Parts: sequence; structure tokens; C-alpha cells
Amino acid sequence: MRPSGRDLSEMRSVSIETGVLKHAEGSCLIKIGDTHVLCTATIEERVPPFVKGSGLGWVTAEYGMLPRSTGSRMRREATAGKQGGRTVEIQRLIGRSLRAGVDRVALGERQITVDCDVIQADGGTRCASITGGWVALKLAVQKLMKAGDVLSDPLIDPVAAVSCGIYAGQPVLDLDYPEDSEAGVDGNFIMTSTKRLIEVQMSAEGATYSRDQMNALLNLAELGVDQLVAKQREATGA
Amino acid sequence: MRPSGRDLSEMRSVSIETGVLKHAEGSCLIKIGDTHVLCTATIEERVPPFVKGSGLGWVTAEYGMLPRSTGSRMRREATAGKQGGRTVEIQRLIGRSLRAGVDRVALGERQITVDCDVIQADGGTRCASITGGWVALKLAVQKLMKAGDVLSDPLIDPVAAVSCGIYAGQPVLDLDYPEDSEAGVDGNFIMTSTKRLIEVQMSAEGATYSRDQMNALLNLAELGVDQLVAKQREATGA
Amino acid sequence: MRPSGRDLSEMRSVSIETGVLKHAEGSCLIKIGDTHVLCTATIEERVPPFVKGSGLGWVTAEYGMLPRSTGSRMRREATAGKQGGRTVEIQRLIGRSLRAGVDRVALGERQITVDCDVIQADGGTRCASITGGWVALKLAVQKLMKAGDVLSDPLIDPVAAVSCGIYAGQPVLDLDYPEDSEAGVDGNFIMTSTKRLIEVQMSAEGATYSRDQMNALLNLAELGVDQLVAKQREATGA
Amino acid sequence: MRPSGRDLSEMRSVSIETGVLKHAEGSCLIKIGDTHVLCTATIEERVPPFVKGSGLGWVTAEYGMLPRSTGSRMRREATAGKQGGRTVEIQRLIGRSLRAGVDRVALGERQITVDCDVIQADGGTRCASITGGWVALKLAVQKLMKAGDVLSDPLIDPVAAVSCGIYAGQPVLDLDYPEDSEAGVDGNFIMTSTKRLIEVQMSAEGATYSRDQMNALLNLAELGVDQLVAKQREATGA
Amino acid sequence: MRPSGRDLSEMRSVSIETGVLKHAEGSCLIKIGDTHVLCTATIEERVPPFVKGSGLGWVTAEYGMLPRSTGSRMRREATAGKQGGRTVEIQRLIGRSLRAGVDRVALGERQITVDCDVIQADGGTRCASITGGWVALKLAVQKLMKAGDVLSDPLIDPVAAVSCGIYAGQPVLDLDYPEDSEAGVDGNFIMTSTKRLIEVQMSAEGATYSRDQMNALLNLAELGVDQLVAKQREATGA
Amino acid sequence: MRPSGRDLSEMRSVSIETGVLKHAEGSCLIKIGDTHVLCTATIEERVPPFVKGSGLGWVTAEYGMLPRSTGSRMRREATAGKQGGRTVEIQRLIGRSLRAGVDRVALGERQITVDCDVIQADGGTRCASITGGWVALKLAVQKLMKAGDVLSDPLIDPVAAVSCGIYAGQPVLDLDYPEDSEAGVDGNFIMTSTKRLIEVQMSAEGATYSRDQMNALLNLAELGVDQLVAKQREATGA
Repeated sequence: MRPSGRDLSEMRSVSIETGVLKHAEGSCLIKIGDTHVLCTATIEERVPPFVKGSGLGWVTAEYGMLPRSTGSRMRREATAGKQGGRTVEIQRLIGRSLRAGVDRVALGERQITVDCDVIQADGGTRCASITGGWVALKLAVQKLMKAGDVLSDPLIDPVAAVSCGIYAGQPVLDLDYPEDSEAGVDGNFIMTSTKRLIEVQMSAEGATYSRDQMNALLNLAELGVDQLVAKQREATGA
Repeated sequence: MRPSGRDLSEMRSVSIETGVLKHAEGSCLIKIGDTHVLCTATIEERVPPFVKGSGLGWVTAEYGMLPRSTGSRMRREATAGKQGGRTVEIQRLIGRSLRAGVDRVALGERQITVDCDVIQADGGTRCASITGGWVALKLAVQKLMKAGDVLSDPLIDPVAAVSCGIYAGQPVLDLDYPEDSEAGVDGNFIMTSTKRLIEVQMSAEGATYSRDQMNALLNLAELGVDQLVAKQREATGA
Repeated sequence: MRPSGRDLSEMRSVSIETGVLKHAEGSCLIKIGDTHVLCTATIEERVPPFVKGSGLGWVTAEYGMLPRSTGSRMRREATAGKQGGRTVEIQRLIGRSLRAGVDRVALGERQITVDCDVIQADGGTRCASITGGWVALKLAVQKLMKAGDVLSDPLIDPVAAVSCGIYAGQPVLDLDYPEDSEAGVDGNFIMTSTKRLIEVQMSAEGATYSRDQMNALLNLAELGVDQLVAKQREATGA
Repeated sequence: MRPSGRDLSEMRSVSIETGVLKHAEGSCLIKIGDTHVLCTATIEERVPPFVKGSGLGWVTAEYGMLPRSTGSRMRREATAGKQGGRTVEIQRLIGRSLRAGVDRVALGERQITVDCDVIQADGGTRCASITGGWVALKLAVQKLMKAGDVLSDPLIDPVAAVSCGIYAGQPVLDLDYPEDSEAGVDGNFIMTSTKRLIEVQMSAEGATYSRDQMNALLNLAELGVDQLVAKQREATGA
Repeated sequence: MRPSGRDLSEMRSVSIETGVLKHAEGSCLIKIGDTHVLCTATIEERVPPFVKGSGLGWVTAEYGMLPRSTGSRMRREATAGKQGGRTVEIQRLIGRSLRAGVDRVALGERQITVDCDVIQADGGTRCASITGGWVALKLAVQKLMKAGDVLSDPLIDPVAAVSCGIYAGQPVLDLDYPEDSEAGVDGNFIMTSTKRLIEVQMSAEGATYSRDQMNALLNLAELGVDQLVAKQREATGA
Repeated sequence: MRPSGRDLSEMRSVSIETGVLKHAEGSCLIKIGDTHVLCTATIEERVPPFVKGSGLGWVTAEYGMLPRSTGSRMRREATAGKQGGRTVEIQRLIGRSLRAGVDRVALGERQITVDCDVIQADGGTRCASITGGWVALKLAVQKLMKAGDVLSDPLIDPVAAVSCGIYAGQPVLDLDYPEDSEAGVDGNFIMTSTKRLIEVQMSAEGATYSRDQMNALLNLAELGVDQLVAKQREATGA
């Protein structure tokens, strides 16, 4: 029934390759099916003004899509002269989601910027960015700990994200692009490995949904997060 | 326990004054406690390029805050040279939420732009904008129907929104600013009068929450929406 | 003869409601007929670089129009990415006019920003902004004096403004929008209560005028300013 | 008493050299003392959207300053990414002033753009721009008439401009930069050769003025305009 | 003597992997040592206004760097709100260089946009972009020819580019980043496979060079281009 | 054979008038045939952040064209909201070229900004800007030396620039606009008076060239630079 032939509760294949860029303190290339996102983490020994002097760390994120990551070429945002509304929304979500899993006291007064650049898009780029972004962040923090700059691990509980939606009347896990463009209702579910919720964004475009449907999607999302967290652990050796 | 002395499940007082601007096709001033938003609806007999020729209508929204709607003066976005990320996120949410309640076939190929300008802010401006925006939209559509330009009502089921959050460990309804700035978890719940969900956005900043807590907030939100819809009906006579 | 039926030297009805916003140090809603402008004054204990260290105060102004303050919806300047030429001209005029009535030594090294936001437009918004802006400024200064932060009143002589023009060959006082769009010659006259001139801007679009006509408009303007100053005094109790 | 040793009612020396650029339809270099402005007029057989189909012509103006026209280097507006408020104000004034002297029916549906670029600044650049801009405009129109594209002269009555101010308590004609930066009150007076007024802008920065003072400045301005018009006539042979 | 231990006339290792993105009409990942650039070609059946109706094709290019392609994180140009001067220069060079190898008549009235995004930078990114961009372009054109949309091959003679410079007083081939940042003189040499020159850009920063030195660099560049063209042929099977 | 009737190796007439602006520390108006560029040099006792504390001087350049310097009016870059790609390229080239002739130690930690504004364009504006820019720079440095602020001359060897190209199959010196728009290959050659090369930029648009052709153009350029340097020496008395 799904365009890809997957079962309703079946994720796409997931792979996470680490250490793909030589300059970044942490980096990985995450592939969720045909969605490929390059995630890097940059450590800086300075923090934004609103954090300065607090002793707390800060984690922020930026998101971008290469012009031909998509089926038809997108205009480059640098040419357009600004980031579009969708980009801004997504990068704020990534930053907020990652921060929810960070002990900012343990991190100490420094900033880690996670860049998520979509190399190829086939649906679910924001969830892939969060899941891969966590890996890049973890690798950067491991470097800080190995160097003795951070003493207790500020990243205890992994953060991962998956999208689910109502497709052809059925709740399905991990929407790919053909499903995403048809689904009247879809949601992004960001959780920790222990299924604590960080962010739920579930929206209908020209439609509505019931609380039962919402719960069905949440159940699917928990299944997906289990698999993503396993891949993250494998990639980071943690 | 709440700074305002309200009960956990008590809304602030709500008032909706209609017809406050002489030029707009629909307008209201919605007050949710000390949060005051001026909402207008503008009808135009043209649609954006991606809708043209489809026979369908379009509803979109823009959001702004007056510089001194807040405790300390905000920089005017027109001076800054662009809308900030928060503004973009909010106006996309308002537009998406209102469209979910619109029968775009019945509306016909025309556009209604809902402007929500915050005159005074005390928490919950996006929810007040959606609730008041619906009223302005309704009034504009009533004008179209009275003129015979639209024959069957495209706005059957009212749309309203309320925020809830975990404040001092307790689920509370309708966060005001002092609560909002303390709450580690808060959500915006957009629903129809029949409690069909349109959008749920529930996020934790530096924290997490359980599914039980999520359900508790949803229960509160349903209580709030009942009261908001009653005020909308009173204001629009529908 | 005038579209509104007013006499040549008759002002529209004027009302000034103060204390309309809870956050601002001074605020009023001024209504000159159907022109409604929300004016706020914000006190900040810092000054622009070119004033720093001089011991002198600074007063500046910003101006905006809500998108649907006008007959057809205006594009939001924040969306357009900049303030238009007309906006820039007007806010510079407001700032310059208010400063002319301020004893900057008595004010002391602090800045007051006056925001004038047009809620509904029907001609004469810049003059209403100056007249109402003065009230907001006065209220903010009264707060400073009550707190003992300012010892001698820096605002001795009220500042008010009115537009006059040649409409259908006749000099008329206080142009409304239908008159303004027809008048070949119109002027803005900013004065103190004692009729000392602060700024005269009298321009012809595709026409010219004589010195006699100029004097006739100045005479009318003095009549108008008397009435405006009376309303200001009533509003500020000064 | 004046820094330059001039009498109170003495203009600086004025020269207007025409035909200084080979590409422009009309051009001149106007020198008012040490203020040098290059003015060009460009004819285009198209008009802005709001004029299209009306059969009427349009005249518009743009203004700029070379970075080192001033005592200390100004930032290039192209680098800053926008025209400053002062620039916008001035170019709107130039356009409005020139249009007041144009018979738009006689011009026919075409646009003339007058560019005024300040090569060297020593006060009074906006007035020099209007006076020189009129010459460039006249030369371009003469070309149109010689080619038979325009049959009756749309520029009957020359337009010129001069600034006057209260300097050291005295009304003085044609302020140069040292006077302009000291004068608490200054005005720009734009007139036709027959002393019909087009625009009066008289403002006080941190001061006020009486109607008598205003009249004294107007009297001086009339003297100045006589001299400027004589130079314009000499330059254009008209 | 070179930081990398290479001989003076030794290129870094070169690899070109094709078909790396599923959406683009042509794509490759070119690696010149540690410089990695992702190149895509997008075919569109429309051309810019200045080409319209000419029957000729158009090839253009855009260039970008991922924020963490470099040793320390670069600000994202989309965030900065514009492309920097260096970016603009480079993408104009890439476009001009590729066009020099294209028979625009044979291509027919369509546009191919080549995007070059630097994934990892270690010197020579503009040359790698041209060399890899040619491959992406070739693959896209092969697709057009296979589909019968283009009948005679518009890309006869491959285009490749290499940088050379004076490092530690010696002419060296293919500068990497440590060399590039030290070299007082460096040049980019763009040629066809037959050593016809397309563009030579040889510049000194705070230094000068002789014609003999220029010729020595050109000789080295010819060696490098031979190796690059061989890799291009291997990658495109042409 | 050349549109102007010049011999293949004949420059246009060259004149350099100095001291044309009263405010600038150095200024000249350079005319190469009908190409007229106003060049100014501004001395500032501050340097950009990346130079601060190094004890070295800095020279930078900006370039602009007046709107009607060209055959048809160009849009003003300040109105467009940014400098175009061509402008950015040119001003970076001017700055780099001038710096190559400057002993930054001898200059001392100060900045000189060279502004090149094209008053009238007829081909070769960037070369005229470099040649005239050098003169303005020299005059400013002479002022520093006369004042004793700089002790040993940081400008030993003059820098000049000329363009050459292949026009109608023949190598020609000093392209004017009609030639430039026809030439498939053209180059800009920046040298010192001793023929040391600073920058060579030789590019083909839709064409290629041989090394022999490149050498022929270099030979012509050396002839041109001799004449330009002679004019520079005459103008600066050095």
C-alpha cells in the first residue's frame, strides 16, 4: 500500500557514517533511505551574549539544503538574500531539540554549533538532522571529555526524531517524500532514548485529526526512535 | 499558586470586540487578560501563483508586534530589515491553522489575508491571534455571503487556540507571561469547536515530558477551547 | 463644500485617551476624526553614540502603519525588508519636531523613543503623531519627575501639529483623506502653544502657490493648534 | 560676520557648465561656491505603472553623494545596502520640485530621470541639485523638441532653489557648510522665476522661530532665486 | 620542501565519483587531495531574458561552501543575507570558464546551471569546481543527447583548471591550503584539453612577478591539466 | 580598422588632473579617451581588525559608476540595495593591485581608502581606476611625508594598468567600449613601471586563445604602461 512497499510500521534503512569531514570537531553523514544529511558540530570557547557569565553552555543549530538536493532545483538562500521561513523554523527546532538533551552546567560556558546540510532530500530532513545532529554533537563532546575540558558527560540520554503521518487513511511510520506530499496530517516526534518527549509537532494542512489518531502516531514514533537510537549508539560507541 | 491567583484550569478573562476598524472587511480586538491583539481580514480577488486557476481559495496570515507591546521596547522589524524567526514561525502557524477550518472550494478563487498585530503582550499572543483571526475571517466571509459572492459558508467549524504548560510541576491552562517564562514545557493546542485537532506543538526547553503530562495538557486545552468558541460565537452571531 | 460638511476653518473632533498600554512609560491613543494613532514613549538610560558623554538627553521617533489601517491593504514594511521613503521622512519629522520642544539639558543623558503606530488612517497621520507623541512624551517625563530622576521639567511649551491645504481653491484647516488626495497644495505646520514655529513644510504637487496663500494657511494652522494644545493639556493635566 | 565674509544677502558665486557628459540627454555641472553637483537627465519612452496609459509624462529624481565629497569620508550607500533617510528625503524633494514646473500633458507619456550626484559638498546640495537639475531637464526637453517628439514646451517657468537660515541671530542667504552646521533654523525655498512657491521647508533643530523671521528668510530667498534663474537662462539659452 | 612532501610538479591525488545524487541531471563528487566539491548540473527548458529568442543555450554556475568545510567555521552566507565578494567572483569565473567550452548553438535554447558546493576545503576549490563542474555538465548533456533533445555534442573539448604559485621562491603545481596561504603569487589557469587558454588569473598579494615566472607556472599548469582531463574522460566515458 | 581609427598599438589620449576635490587627501580626474574616473584617497588613522596591532598599513579601494556614465542609464546600486558582482570584482582588483606597490611597513598602521567613481565610461574603467587610483594614493602619501607622519616613501615603483584584447582577429592595445563589446578575448594587465607583473586577468567569453596570443597582448600592455607611468610621474611630480 505504501509507495515504497514498506509495512505501515517499517522505517527506511538507516546508516550513520562518522568522521566524514576532517576539520569539524564532530561530523557524520546520516542516511535515512534517500534522505542524506551532513551534520557537523563546531566547538567555540565563546557563548552568545544572553548566556555570557552564566557558566552554562549553549547548543545551537543551522540548517540548509543544497540547491539540487531536491527534485527540481531550489534557489540558493544566499542568493535570495535570506533564509526562508521553513529553514528558520527547522533550525530553531533542531537547536531546541538538541538542547533538551544537554546538561548545560556540565558542558560549561562554551558553544557548540550543529550544522545540518541536506545533500539529498526524500522526506524527513528535519528528523534526520536532529538524529544525525545528536551524533555530531556527541562526537564533539567526546573530544572535549578526552581532552579533559569537560569532566562529566553532559549528554546522558540520546535524542532522536522521526516523522509519522496519516497516509491514505492509515497511520504510517517514517514518511518519505511521496507520502509526505500526500499526507493531510503529519507529525514530528522528538524523544529521548527513554521515550521522554521533547517536542511534538503534529499538524494538519486543510484537515483535522482525533486524539486517537495522535496516539497511534505516537506509538509508531516510539518504535522508530528505538531503531534510531540503536544506530546512534553504534555510531558513537556509547 | 499561580502568579495571577488563578486556578490551574482557569482561563484569563476573554473579550472580543468586533468592527473596530472602518476599512477592513473584518476586524476585531481580542483581549485574553492583558494580551491584546488587533485582527483584520482583507479580501482580495486574486490568489498566489501556486493557487491560480485551481478554483480554490487561499487564506494566509501575517503577524507583528508593536514595539512597545512588551515590557522592554522591541526593535521594529521594519527597521531591522526583516521579520525575525519567531515572527515567521508564528504567522505560518496562524495561516495553517485557519486554513484547516476553511472549505477552500466554497470560498472560491480569492484570497483572505488575516493580519494579527499585537498591541499589548502578556503571553499567548499566537493563540490569541488564531482565535481572534478566526473572528475577523468569519466577519469578512459573512460580508462575502451577504453580497452573494460566496454561496455556501466555507467556515463551518470554528477554530480556536490556547496554550497550556507545566508550571511549578503542575499542568496549567492559558499561560500568562510570568508563567510562560518559567515553564519548562509548554504547548499550543489548536482545535475546532468539536475538539478535532488541527495542530499540537508541545515543546520542552531544556527539559522533557511524559505522555501522561501531554494528555493532561490536552484535557485542559479542550476546556479552554470551549470557552473561546463561545466568545467567538457571541462576537460573530454564529 | 468640504466632503465632510465641515467649515473651512473647522477641525475634526479630537480625543486623546492616555494610559492605554500597561508596559510603556507614557502612552496615548489620539483620534483626529477617523485617524487613530497609538503613541508610546519609552525611556532608556542610554543614548546614541553621537550624544554619549555630552550630558544631554535625546528624543527620537519611529512611525509605522498597520497593514489594514488604510482603504486597501498596505504591504507590511517588515515583509518588504525596509521602511519606505515616506515612513523615513515622517519619523524624522516627528523626532525633529518633538526635540524642538525639549530642554535636553534638563532631560539629562537618557533617551526617550516615541513610537507612533497608525491604527486607522484618514489623512493627517503625521500631524496626529506629533500631537499625540507629545502627550506620550509628557507622560513619560512626568514619571521621571515623580521619581526624582529629572528635577526641572524639560517640556515647558507643548508642541502640536496640523495640516492645512488649498482644497477646491479654498484654504482649509485639517485635511482629511478625501481632501488630501485632491489638494494640489498642502502643508504641515508644527508649532508650540505660543505659536512659535518649529517646522513648516508646504508643498505643491504639480502646482504652485503664492505667499498670500501661504499666510492664509498659517493663520488657519494657528487656530487648529490652539484646539490641539487644549486637548493635550486636558490629557496630561498640565 | 559670516565665516566667508559675505554680506547677509549675498549668494556664493554660481556657475553652470552644460554638456559635460556625452551619453546623457541633458547634463550640467553646477557650482554654488564649493558645492559642486553633476546633474544629468535621462529620457526613457516608458513610464512607471501608476502613470501608464494616462498620456501624461513623469519626472523623477535620484540623489547621491560621492564618498569623499565631504570633509570626512562617508560610507558608500551601495555598500551600506540602502539609501539613508536623508538621501531618500532629498531625492523625493527634488522630484516633487521639478514636477511642479512641468506641464505633464505637453511632455507626453515618457519619463525623464534627473540624477544629481554631489561631487563636492559645502552646504546647500539639495538646492543646487534642484537648480542644476532643472537645467539638465531643460536641455533634455530641448532635444525632444528639436527632434519633434514634443511639440509645445512643457517647461515654461524655470524652477530654482536656495537655502536661507538664521545664523548668529541674523537672517542670511545661501548657507554654506560652516553656517549650516551652526544655524538653529534653516529653510529650503523652491520657487519659479515668477516667485510662485513650490515648496517651503523651514525647520528648527532644538529651537523655534517667529513668522517675522520666516518672512525675512522668504524675502532673501526671492533675491537668491533671481540670480539663479539668470544663470539657468544663460546656460540653456532660454 | 613542500609541506605535503610532494614534488614541485606533482598534483595531489584526484578522484571523480559520478552519479552521487539521484535528483540532478548530472552530478559528481570531485576530490583533489582533501578538497572535496559536490558538483551538480540542472537542465531547465528556459533561459535568462538576455538570451530569450536567440536560439542559443546558456550555462551558468553557482558556488558555495558548507560552514564547516573550513578549519574554523565560516558564517553561512544565507544567514549573512548575501553572497560575499569572493563567492561572487568565483561563481562568475566558473560560469565563464564552462561557457568557453560550450557550443551554444548546438546546446539549443535551454539553460544548464552548475552548482559547486564545497564539502571540505584544502585549497584550490575554484579549480576543482571548474574541473568537476565540467563533468557534471557533460553528464547532463549526455542525458539530453540520449533523449534526442540535443543532436550534436555541444561539449567537444573538455575544460579543466589548476592553480599554481610561487611557494618559497619556487614555482609549484596545484597549491594546497598551507601553500596557498603562504604564496605571494598564485594563479588559476583554465584550459581545454588541447591547451587552448580560457582564463588566466595570476595575481600577487603584496608582491610582483616576472614574465619568466609566469611562463614557468603556465608550463606546470599544462602538466596538471593533462592529468585532470584524463580523470574527466574516465569519469564520463568520453 | 579600429572603430576609432587608432593603430593597433596606439593608446587613447591620456590626461590626469590632480587636486580636483578640496576635501580629499589626494584626488585626480583621469581621462583615458572618453573614460573619465574621479579618484580620491582618504587617510584614516585606523585599520581593519585583521591588521590591528601588526604595525602594517592597509590600502583598500571602492569602485562605483554614476548612473548616467553609460550609454543607457544604469540602476543606482544604492537603490538596488547592493553592489553588483562586477563592482565587487573590480574593487577587489583595484585594492589588490595598489597594495602590491605599497611597502606596508613604511606606511605604518593606518588605512588609505581609494575611491574610484566613473563619471563617464567608454571601456577600460577598471584600468583607468588603478592608474588614477595610484596617483591619488601617491598624493595622499606625499602629504603624510610632508607632515612627517611617514618617513620613508612606501610607494617606490608606480603601478599602472591597461587592457588589451583580440579585436577582429588582431591584438590591440587599450580597448575602448566598441572594441570591448566585440572582442572575444580581453585582458587586464597590471604592472609596475619596471614591468614587474602584479596581476594578469585574461579571459575569453565563448572562445579560447593561445599562449602566443597571450604574449602578444603582454607586449602591447608593456607599451601602454610606459605611457601611463609617464603621465603619472608628470601628475605627481615624482
